[in-house]
Amino acid sequence: MAHRFVCTERVQFSDTDLAGIMHFSNFFKFMERAEHAFFRSLDLSVWEDPAKIAPEERVGWPRVHASCDFHAPLRFEEEARIELFVEEVRKRAIRYLIRVWKADGELAGEGRMAAACVRKDPATGQMKAVEIPERIRLKIEIAPPERLRRPGP
Amino acid sequence: MAHRFVCTERVQFSDTDLAGIMHFSNFFKFMERAEHAFFRSLDLSVWEDPAKIAPEERVGWPRVHASCDFHAPLRFEEEARIELFVEEVRKRAIRYLIRVWKADGELAGEGRMAAACVRKDPATGQMKAVEIPERIRLKIEIAPPERLRRPGP
Amino acid sequence: MAHRFVCTERVQFSDTDLAGIMHFSNFFKFMERAEHAFFRSLDLSVWEDPAKIAPEERVGWPRVHASCDFHAPLRFEEEARIELFVEEVRKRAIRYLIRVWKADGELAGEGRMAAACVRKDPATGQMKAVEIPERIRLKIEIAPPERLRRPGP
Amino acid sequence: MAHRFVCTERVQFSDTDLAGIMHFSNFFKFMERAEHAFFRSLDLSVWEDPAKIAPEERVGWPRVHASCDFHAPLRFEEEARIELFVEEVRKRAIRYLIRVWKADGELAGEGRMAAACVRKDPATGQMKAVEIPERIRLKIEIAPPERLRRPGP
Repeated sequence: MAHRFVCTERVQFSDTDLAGIMHFSNFFKFMERAEHAFFRSLDLSVWEDPAKIAPEERVGWPRVHASCDFHAPLRFEEEARIELFVEEVRKRAIRYLIRVWKADGELAGEGRMAAACVRKDPATGQMKAVEIPERIRLKIEIAPPERLRRPGP
Repeated sequence: MAHRFVCTERVQFSDTDLAGIMHFSNFFKFMERAEHAFFRSLDLSVWEDPAKIAPEERVGWPRVHASCDFHAPLRFEEEARIELFVEEVRKRAIRYLIRVWKADGELAGEGRMAAACVRKDPATGQMKAVEIPERIRLKIEIAPPERLRRPGP
Repeated sequence: MAHRFVCTERVQFSDTDLAGIMHFSNFFKFMERAEHAFFRSLDLSVWEDPAKIAPEERVGWPRVHASCDFHAPLRFEEEARIELFVEEVRKRAIRYLIRVWKADGELAGEGRMAAACVRKDPATGQMKAVEIPERIRLKIEIAPPERLRRPGP
Repeated sequence: MAHRFVCTERVQFSDTDLAGIMHFSNFFKFMERAEHAFFRSLDLSVWEDPAKIAPEERVGWPRVHASCDFHAPLRFEEEARIELFVEEVRKRAIRYLIRVWKADGELAGEGRMAAACVRKDPATGQMKAVEIPERIRLKIEIAPPERLRRPGP
């Protein structure tokens, strides 16, 4: 069971804008990359293979919320460290707390993403929130509160 | 003086993802497009022309916060309506409330962006928060609270 | 029947990079936007609605080739004019010649895109090149060669 | 001296489109990532640090050409291998041949990028093509022709 995951992402040229720093929308892409890498680290995928998981069992994870406070800019070729915590596991949704750290250890951004667990109705094609399957829930746990506090300077 | 701005954006193929809907990061791009179009509607630009505004007067608007709650997906070729309100004008920052509406009038997303007013220090090249220049502040006003309440169904 | 289409696209902040100009990858997005708008102008869509077109009739248009020569940069908030010509219609593919013009009339980029007409095999899920359906082919014609020559300065 | 560079890139969720495959514009981003990583592997950067390289020595590398033939789609979470060759070194430009390989060894795309070596005129701010500085040219060599031929099946 896991409640924390860390990965690194290098800021690419196409991630920057004419202000010379990473465009803010890419912070959200970095946050999602960490979420998906977290799933892979648990031998899961946010996009389950229909060859392995039956259609009536497959679930997806659309975002219902995303937010970020921007503290310091990221620059071209900088290697950011992305730290993801499982902040809350509800019946049909997971909420993450995510910190993006600059190469020098300064906090660049701190945000949250909440993803709903959904399944496609085979008849209507509509997405419907469903309970998180046990095969996924058993691998994920809530981070202890002291881990969620931001380390002081 | 203005406190509200509306524009439309069509969802492009490259805005979608393999779930068949607009990728959530593009909601933030839509929100920023509305902010920049709002400035243009006031004969302003978030990136002031150095040929028109002296370096010691030029300001920029990096985001300090962005958030969005996602209510309904946007689909390829759908024309979304983006409605921006000035929610708060502080000395050195502006906060917007932004709603993204589906073509059929359903709310797709609702979020906030806060942008700081900054100026580049010519000596160090660092960005520093500064007071919003009068030439900009005089064109922007806070939306009346009743405008910020979401219209019922 | 149509062989030419023109639309405009404004360069957005998120389209730029730290060199202060539109990132080259967005030229290709502009080119694709013109292609899709061309289809819409003919009451067609590159992503056919399953509610209107039977699965055994639906076709898609993945790119098999894309190229661009970059002549002049596009800048933030500039309104580019995108001019698309149908250069070749083959049995199972269409090739476009596309020019991106700066607001002042200078050529910013010139490129080509070739899209194959494909259909999903319902059994295997694989995409297979198929003949362009008559309902589409009858609306599209090849541009006369003199239209493809670039206008002189 | 180097004429070849290989790196891997994982296809991210935001790289895909509603056709369920990586959007073609991201092939060009992958190609550029390989070019920039190639420079880093030689202890160079396409965006030279003004603190290390004098303004009159700094050069940049805008694209003058980019093209790609698409042979097979890339899918979500697939790890592509990107193989870059220096195909031509001219006085003021470098041309690369780049192949993007699927995880299973199939060729996904093959393309070319040409980047001009430019320097900003301090007076006008305009970019001007200049000779590739020796400190860069001495680290780069042209790939032998037999390396450029695509390996057979």
